[in-house]
Amino acid sequence: MFAQDTYPRIDEETLTAHTAAIVQHAGASAEDARTTAEVLVASDIRGIESHGVARLEQYVASIEAGVLDPRAQPEIVRQSAATALIDAHNGLGQVSGVYAMRLAIEKATQADVGIVSLRNGCHYGIAGYYAMMALDHGMIGISLTNSSPLVAPTGGREAMLGTNPIAFAAPSGGPIPFVLDMATSTVPRGRIEVAARKDLPLYAGWSMDEDGRPTLDAQAALKGALLPLGGALESGGYKGYGLATMVEVLCGVLSGSLYGPLIANLWTLERPSVLGQFFMALRPEAFGTLEEFQQRLQDLQRLLKEGQLAMDSPEILVAGEKEARATERNRRDGIPVHPTVVAKLDEMGTRAGVGTVSRRS
Amino acid sequence: MFAQDTYPRIDEETLTAHTAAIVQHAGASAEDARTTAEVLVASDIRGIESHGVARLEQYVASIEAGVLDPRAQPEIVRQSAATALIDAHNGLGQVSGVYAMRLAIEKATQADVGIVSLRNGCHYGIAGYYAMMALDHGMIGISLTNSSPLVAPTGGREAMLGTNPIAFAAPSGGPIPFVLDMATSTVPRGRIEVAARKDLPLYAGWSMDEDGRPTLDAQAALKGALLPLGGALESGGYKGYGLATMVEVLCGVLSGSLYGPLIANLWTLERPSVLGQFFMALRPEAFGTLEEFQQRLQDLQRLLKEGQLAMDSPEILVAGEKEARATERNRRDGIPVHPTVVAKLDEMGTRAGVGTVSRRS
Repeated sequence: MFAQDTYPRIDEETLTAHTAAIVQHAGASAEDARTTAEVLVASDIRGIESHGVARLEQYVASIEAGVLDPRAQPEIVRQSAATALIDAHNGLGQVSGVYAMRLAIEKATQADVGIVSLRNGCHYGIAGYYAMMALDHGMIGISLTNSSPLVAPTGGREAMLGTNPIAFAAPSGGPIPFVLDMATSTVPRGRIEVAARKDLPLYAGWSMDEDGRPTLDAQAALKGALLPLGGALESGGYKGYGLATMVEVLCGVLSGSLYGPLIANLWTLERPSVLGQFFMALRPEAFGTLEEFQQRLQDLQRLLKEGQLAMDSPEILVAGEKEARATERNRRDGIPVHPTVVAKLDEMGTRAGVGTVSRRS
Repeated sequence: MFAQDTYPRIDEETLTAHTAAIVQHAGASAEDARTTAEVLVASDIRGIESHGVARLEQYVASIEAGVLDPRAQPEIVRQSAATALIDAHNGLGQVSGVYAMRLAIEKATQADVGIVSLRNGCHYGIAGYYAMMALDHGMIGISLTNSSPLVAPTGGREAMLGTNPIAFAAPSGGPIPFVLDMATSTVPRGRIEVAARKDLPLYAGWSMDEDGRPTLDAQAALKGALLPLGGALESGGYKGYGLATMVEVLCGVLSGSLYGPLIANLWTLERPSVLGQFFMALRPEAFGTLEEFQQRLQDLQRLLKEGQLAMDSPEILVAGEKEARATERNRRDGIPVHPTVVAKLDEMGTRAGVGTVSRRS
């Protein structure tokens, strides 16, 4: 049994409306609050608790501290047929993210590819949400963001890069769209915190101590930094470090935002994070028919899934499959939300005048 | 002392001309032979022996066996302002690769971004070569290729994906361009072969045995498959698997070539490999001035390099730095080539009528 099975479950629309009411009460327009809520709830639906409504408290705190402007609107600074630069003016990351990805898709509809670079951005939730927006248009979607420094470069011991995720979505036309949505660190910092609370050892490749030595001790890891994907040098950590830096180049450096160690610490209320983000949409139809593309993609997924299993392995999954299953179940049975988070939603909802959030009976 | 320090050294132009003569003798035009030689030698210059002139023997064997057509010319199947699909007609991978990347750069010059998908391709050497072609034009370059199955998906034990590299280059305007050129497996198969020959243990995350269990035993690993970057599931191997599959989607699936386990085994002489490749050029000037982009990129490189060192770490490198140093030294002192490879170059040169290759005195 998964821990989530003991959580209260809340209907998608109930959770979205409740979240939106809280964001609106914090100062956003009804429309922007709804957009923000939809992106957050989409994360919980996909089973990614870490980027869902659990973060709402921190968004509200950021708004109240004046480091996130809930009324700011994204603005196109310059554009061409296939590209655009957007200034998010430190507004809600979900609002500017959806705006930017819509623009990338619109450009790709005309020019076969659309690339939108975004500056002065804030946390935008799961990167996968924006990449997946392309799917309904029969397009490939990509979204990247830089983030607060948590990861040390290979050979170093200071956190200088974010967990800088790569999200890539491709339309399969079948039950499982291909959706890769991964941090370029081995694990998020939350995994270390959970291990520390439960007094569990870490796995190799997760983290280093404050001297920069790989460690399996969660307490030591909390004083150190995360390792990039691949872990130590010998197991390919320099590749994860390279990928995190590539994301940094396409986000902070390309857009003219902050980058690397210049970005503020996670959820600080002292100054805005000034993130850079990258959105891209690509039409497979520029190269052939969508149907043939989808046929090949489904065939690749099938071939991978039908491969011989490793000993003790129950099955081979393809990227996005676990999340597609979670989505199906959570849309049907309600979204599991951690009891502490539900209590917080009740408290914030009461403050916002919409009361407690209805659990599924 | 590195093993390479004991190798004979050959001047860049000498090695390029010798290699080109062999490729031309095998059936390519003088121009195409020169292009092929330049890409191969560029790999050796950058210190990447595995993809350089050491492979020449296999290219020639492929031509002689009729699975690679040295006269075939790449053809544009369809195109728009920002995109193109190329059929490489199973010609020399370096020739079609250079053609495709030039086209991507040309399109980006007009449209700010150029994306070229290539089908019916062959091995094209280091992916980084094509990404780096964008640098001279002040552009970001990306190149991806699928390849023969060597890597098992997470949960599986059969090699079903190639080492599918990601190459990304960005112009810094300084001494070190940012060049990430990485396989999405933890290591190439060559590393396992070397360990087996020298009877050395492997590192964690490199390989699995034939039952799909991670192994440190090189002999067992040779019967198994490579692990994707991240290694086992717990250390993030599913992310490397996801990246390898993403490359597969953008290469084989997008272009209409073969993909995954459908691709022929490495260097087989039985049938063509029918690879798919992806080339992209992006103008930073679509989003701001090139100078400001370069300033930020150099600043990021400096910040990373000046970070606090991990215990026992001599320095922090940025992607492409080691290769930039090798390039400088090898251009000055001559390119180190393994004695066995030099002997082979002599033999092939003699057959091609240009005799042995001149070593540096």
